Amino acid sequence: MQRSLDIQSLFDALRKGDRVALGRAITLVESTRPEDRRLSEALVQHCLEHAGQALRLGITGVPGVGKSTLIEALGMALIDAGHRVAVLAVDPSSSRSSGSILGDKTRMEKLATSDRAFIRPSATGGALGGVAARTRETILLCEAAGYDRILVETVGVGQSELDVDNMTDLNLLLMLAGAGDELQGIKRGIMEAADLVVLTKAVGENLPRAERAQRDLRNALMFLLPRDSGRQPEVLLTSALEGHGIKELATRVESLYQEDMMSQHIGRRRKEQDLYWLHHVLREGLLSRFLNDGRMGNALAALEEIVRSGGKSPFQAANELLDDFFSSGSE
Amino acid sequence: MQRSLDIQSLFDALRKGDRVALGRAITLVESTRPEDRRLSEALVQHCLEHAGQALRLGITGVPGVGKSTLIEALGMALIDAGHRVAVLAVDPSSSRSSGSILGDKTRMEKLATSDRAFIRPSATGGALGGVAARTRETILLCEAAGYDRILVETVGVGQSELDVDNMTDLNLLLMLAGAGDELQGIKRGIMEAADLVVLTKAVGENLPRAERAQRDLRNALMFLLPRDSGRQPEVLLTSALEGHGIKELATRVESLYQEDMMSQHIGRRRKEQDLYWLHHVLREGLLSRFLNDGRMGNALAALEEIVRSGGKSPFQAANELLDDFFSSGSE
Repeated sequence: MQRSLDIQSLFDALRKGDRVALGRAITLVESTRPEDRRLSEALVQHCLEHAGQALRLGITGVPGVGKSTLIEALGMALIDAGHRVAVLAVDPSSSRSSGSILGDKTRMEKLATSDRAFIRPSATGGALGGVAARTRETILLCEAAGYDRILVETVGVGQSELDVDNMTDLNLLLMLAGAGDELQGIKRGIMEAADLVVLTKAVGENLPRAERAQRDLRNALMFLLPRDSGRQPEVLLTSALEGHGIKELATRVESLYQEDMMSQHIGRRRKEQDLYWLHHVLREGLLSRFLNDGRMGNALAALEEIVRSGGKSPFQAANELLDDFFSSGSE
Repeated sequence: MQRSLDIQSLFDALRKGDRVALGRAITLVESTRPEDRRLSEALVQHCLEHAGQALRLGITGVPGVGKSTLIEALGMALIDAGHRVAVLAVDPSSSRSSGSILGDKTRMEKLATSDRAFIRPSATGGALGGVAARTRETILLCEAAGYDRILVETVGVGQSELDVDNMTDLNLLLMLAGAGDELQGIKRGIMEAADLVVLTKAVGENLPRAERAQRDLRNALMFLLPRDSGRQPEVLLTSALEGHGIKELATRVESLYQEDMMSQHIGRRRKEQDLYWLHHVLREGLLSRFLNDGRMGNALAALEEIVRSGGKSPFQAANELLDDFFSSGSE
């Protein structure tokens, strides 16, 4: 009883725009403690009817591409246009590199001190359903707290980052023109999740390289299937430090968002995303319960060795595990 | 006892190169009847130690791209080089279109009548672990039967086709140059699974378009991460009807295969693939057991409706289902 009162007052404070309350609410949702789960679910349930009114924008790019500088500039442009901006990060690794959003927070000086922005470092550790699933819940909390532009940052190198396409309305992929090696760090499939490819640091001697990369990318992207929206990805040039291309980027993002709202594409996309997460968390949960049965975890490890050495087909090994797991239960 | 004897004699016949036995063995592996599963597993276990000596080559392309003509020409080139060729198809749809391999069999006249080739139409229906998982077992049967070049054909439009990259050593992606619409049918991610992109029907008035597409694709593919082999995909031109580029294609495929054998890339790749399938079949099997519990199937359907209407977060809905499923059992 006491605890459900706590949830109600946490929710009330969050709705009033109390940033400390929002921070505590996110920590609760990120918690891996079993006793926090019911509370977290109750809180999300409260938020649900006040969520869904924001643009959810994915921003992906490898460290060094200029992500924090662009987020700072784009975020301030959105605030100038009257919005409230939340910046979240999805990062499955527990120890973050130098491109960390914790570091970014100090580098996003204007955003970090604006009372219309909320910056949240990423959750770490492997929660049930993965970090990405928790980020999806965090989006709902931020929306209920009145943020209407949610920027979800990823580094674009891991599997979980592909999940971001399943929680955002639009995605930006940041690339550094002319830097062959830097272009090579993007996980397969991530370019195909981009609505806008943004070539960063397109200024000075870098500009001709950026323009050439823009041409090549436009030719390249024609070979991809259109996005679900029916559009091919566009390629824009920016130089966030100088402010070049940022207003154009913000305008383009807003007009794509309006277009997708009008066509009801966003509504359909979000329903599909919800079903994706239902099935995703269900699958991961089944696997997690299976692995948490210590006996099955050991049996899997032993069979992995046998399969690796060619002693058994993986198909047969998996079926043995399944038979074993369910023999005491339903069958 | 009688049945295990049957498996032994089926295996013996298959090893002697009896094509009828190989066909029966594949039918057994494709069977969804529970009572066939142990037999199928015993058969695959027999084959396992005689498998793994073939090049497993994925060939993907939408209907109309000229897949059957290319497979006929490439297959005959491989046979001329002394190989035995098996052609398998992965197709998750139950009713195949006009590009069907059943139709192909009559269009692959030379291959279909060669005693060094074996052509197998695809399995249909949703077996446990999916059609693709069954195809992976079928590859082992063909290898045990002495085929050393396994061509796995897919149409490149469905989810299961992405699985093909998890069962082959090398992949060809067939594309029709200059035919904008035809280029648009490839599922996201499939281009990124290609080792060689093959532009088909590159002859006559189509040749300049093909050469331009080759240039554009080469520029495009530089933006992708290299394959696990460390290579970027290459782009070749062919005209299978005229025999142009087929020998070059066969030679290139063989040299990539030799290169990957020498570097032990193929051995590592296959071990990873085996672990992928172990985990894949385990996950799918857990979900399948869950859904086969009629009560859970109904509960999932009901919660899908609630999630779709925004009444519950998908995270919460999934956890409710998991709690319910395991409440009678382990927890």
